[in-house]
Amino acid sequence: MNNFEYYNPVNIIFGKDRIGELQNLIPQGTNILLIYGGGSIFKNGVYQKVIQALDGYHVKEFGGIEPNPTHETSMKAIALIKKENIDFLLAVGGGSVIDATKYIAAAAHFDGNSWDILANEAEIKEAIPLGTILTLPATGTEMNANSVISLKSTNEKLSFANKKVMPKFSILDPTIPASLPPRQVANGVVDSFVHVIEQYITYPASAPLQDRLAEAILITLIEEGPKVYKNPADYDAMANLMWCSTMALNGIISCGVPNDWVTHQIGHELTAYHGIDHARTLAIVLPGVWSVFRKEKKEKLIQYATRVWGISSGSENERIKGAIEMTIEFFESVGIKTRLVDYNVGGDTIEKIVERFKKRNWTAIGDRELATLEKVREILESRL
Amino acid sequence: MNNFEYYNPVNIIFGKDRIGELQNLIPQGTNILLIYGGGSIFKNGVYQKVIQALDGYHVKEFGGIEPNPTHETSMKAIALIKKENIDFLLAVGGGSVIDATKYIAAAAHFDGNSWDILANEAEIKEAIPLGTILTLPATGTEMNANSVISLKSTNEKLSFANKKVMPKFSILDPTIPASLPPRQVANGVVDSFVHVIEQYITYPASAPLQDRLAEAILITLIEEGPKVYKNPADYDAMANLMWCSTMALNGIISCGVPNDWVTHQIGHELTAYHGIDHARTLAIVLPGVWSVFRKEKKEKLIQYATRVWGISSGSENERIKGAIEMTIEFFESVGIKTRLVDYNVGGDTIEKIVERFKKRNWTAIGDRELATLEKVREILESRL
Repeated sequence: MNNFEYYNPVNIIFGKDRIGELQNLIPQGTNILLIYGGGSIFKNGVYQKVIQALDGYHVKEFGGIEPNPTHETSMKAIALIKKENIDFLLAVGGGSVIDATKYIAAAAHFDGNSWDILANEAEIKEAIPLGTILTLPATGTEMNANSVISLKSTNEKLSFANKKVMPKFSILDPTIPASLPPRQVANGVVDSFVHVIEQYITYPASAPLQDRLAEAILITLIEEGPKVYKNPADYDAMANLMWCSTMALNGIISCGVPNDWVTHQIGHELTAYHGIDHARTLAIVLPGVWSVFRKEKKEKLIQYATRVWGISSGSENERIKGAIEMTIEFFESVGIKTRLVDYNVGGDTIEKIVERFKKRNWTAIGDRELATLEKVREILESRL
Repeated sequence: MNNFEYYNPVNIIFGKDRIGELQNLIPQGTNILLIYGGGSIFKNGVYQKVIQALDGYHVKEFGGIEPNPTHETSMKAIALIKKENIDFLLAVGGGSVIDATKYIAAAAHFDGNSWDILANEAEIKEAIPLGTILTLPATGTEMNANSVISLKSTNEKLSFANKKVMPKFSILDPTIPASLPPRQVANGVVDSFVHVIEQYITYPASAPLQDRLAEAILITLIEEGPKVYKNPADYDAMANLMWCSTMALNGIISCGVPNDWVTHQIGHELTAYHGIDHARTLAIVLPGVWSVFRKEKKEKLIQYATRVWGISSGSENERIKGAIEMTIEFFESVGIKTRLVDYNVGGDTIEKIVERFKKRNWTAIGDRELATLEKVREILESRL
């Protein structure tokens, strides 16, 4: 097992009817900025519940965070924060709203161009405290230090991680996502699944507990995903998806083991160039990563085939092939297509992505730096 | 899934050679009380490393915390704390030293008789901050809010839990327990195992992820336990035991599911009356709990038989019986006997325990209050 640190002070409030507890979670007298997205919180009744729970606080609002949240929109929120002396941010939304809120928290009092936090790992000296009410289980951002932000002007999508922007609390109420469209539920299932994969399908590291914890989440997603896709109002199935999704990226399964993240790094570019939903980009790229690196990831792919899919016969190659096929079938069972052609993306985009990585001086990325630019091209070409 | 809260801000520093990081973990200028047990830290070199790492701090020492730490000894530490203006406690030891340190932290500035914290759930208004260096993986106390303390004068052993005594950090270095006697390693394996069981073998609660996380820890303990018992210096095996042991009781597997703890409640009395090692009392009591409640815990016992022990044929009763037998064999494979007679305990002790529970006005304890005093007697009698 590798040395590791694990520190996660996010207070998780999980279950039915917990929004009223905001009164115990945010100190009285706080100037709160309520941050949300496209306005679904007005339709599902969450806005009213939040406003009622915040009775007695000074509350301002900032709506309109977009699905792939931008630096540009975040800057508008910061102007409001400065004007209104805001000292607490309450994100009510999915991964995009929460990621934007983390960036806003870090950038509000940043000296200089805050895009440097993403582009140049600039130091964050202070951040406005924040809390979240999760409306869409998917990214795990409600219980970690990560944020992914896009720069509209250049079509770039980058990430940062900093303990200072971890939420003070996150309210996870499975009745809230009950009204989501199936498309977004499916995205959540696949996003959570691939988060686990990026921390699991690498190489053996004498960490059997972490392997089994990862497998526990994968198997549960395979069982519960189709149920909740079919009926987002199935409370237990949604609760299980929500908790899988949080556990997938709160750092627990990553303790002491190697990580990959190459599927995410390539996937982000497909979103940046074509606006494809994040989860769908992962479903496209992942099978390519596995077939290109089937030798380098052999031990873990075979373990995955056996323990997650119950494939125990056939040659090693056949078992790996079987596991890749069953994973694709699983993605498609929740309505997610896995080929570039399904999204009208052709070879020209592949060249653009490789060129952009070159410009960033990336020579190789991911697990053991296996993914040279040549391999990145090969991965994407295998998904045409 | 039941509603739950999960909050665990303990900073885990895991791996080889991490003691030097104390300098980053404790603010300069702090008056530290170093708390330890019987002195094994002088033999294994840990004391020297700690003292070296604390160069520049004001450090006082308090040794002699006993295996089942007492209120009486804790009071002596508190006298020293008051005299020396201590403002940080550093526990270097196993579960007993850490539990005592938590109690000392809570009792130091307690107004009145601090035994009330255990006996009468008296409110803890403030606690001295503490950190730990774990020398024996077993109780999980390094990453939770719990503490178990004995009152020597009455032979009582009680527990309390309070967020204010959660460690600020815990250093888990698998090379430290490498010099432990196998007897203590075995205790750690069985203690961790039964911690998981108390949060798992209850009844189905639509929480498949939590079930699988519990099973992940159990299977890993079954695989790694005998290895580390045979050779505590096997780094990977010890690292896996250490992380299993922490994960078993840091609250993660308990989220949203029912708990039992009846094995612990009965086991504590065997320690209080006969000084039997905590883990051994659990190994004695657990098979009795399962055979007495085989009907009430049926679904979970069958799931355990199938998923943890691979028992998939036979009648329901045969599968449950098989799982109980394999669990006993597992305990005995690490040298832990499971019958009262093995510890020279007879029926008179059973009567004393039932009488004591009566005096505490306990009519029924544990999962669904299944364990009436009659059932407690039956459980213990089945283990004679």
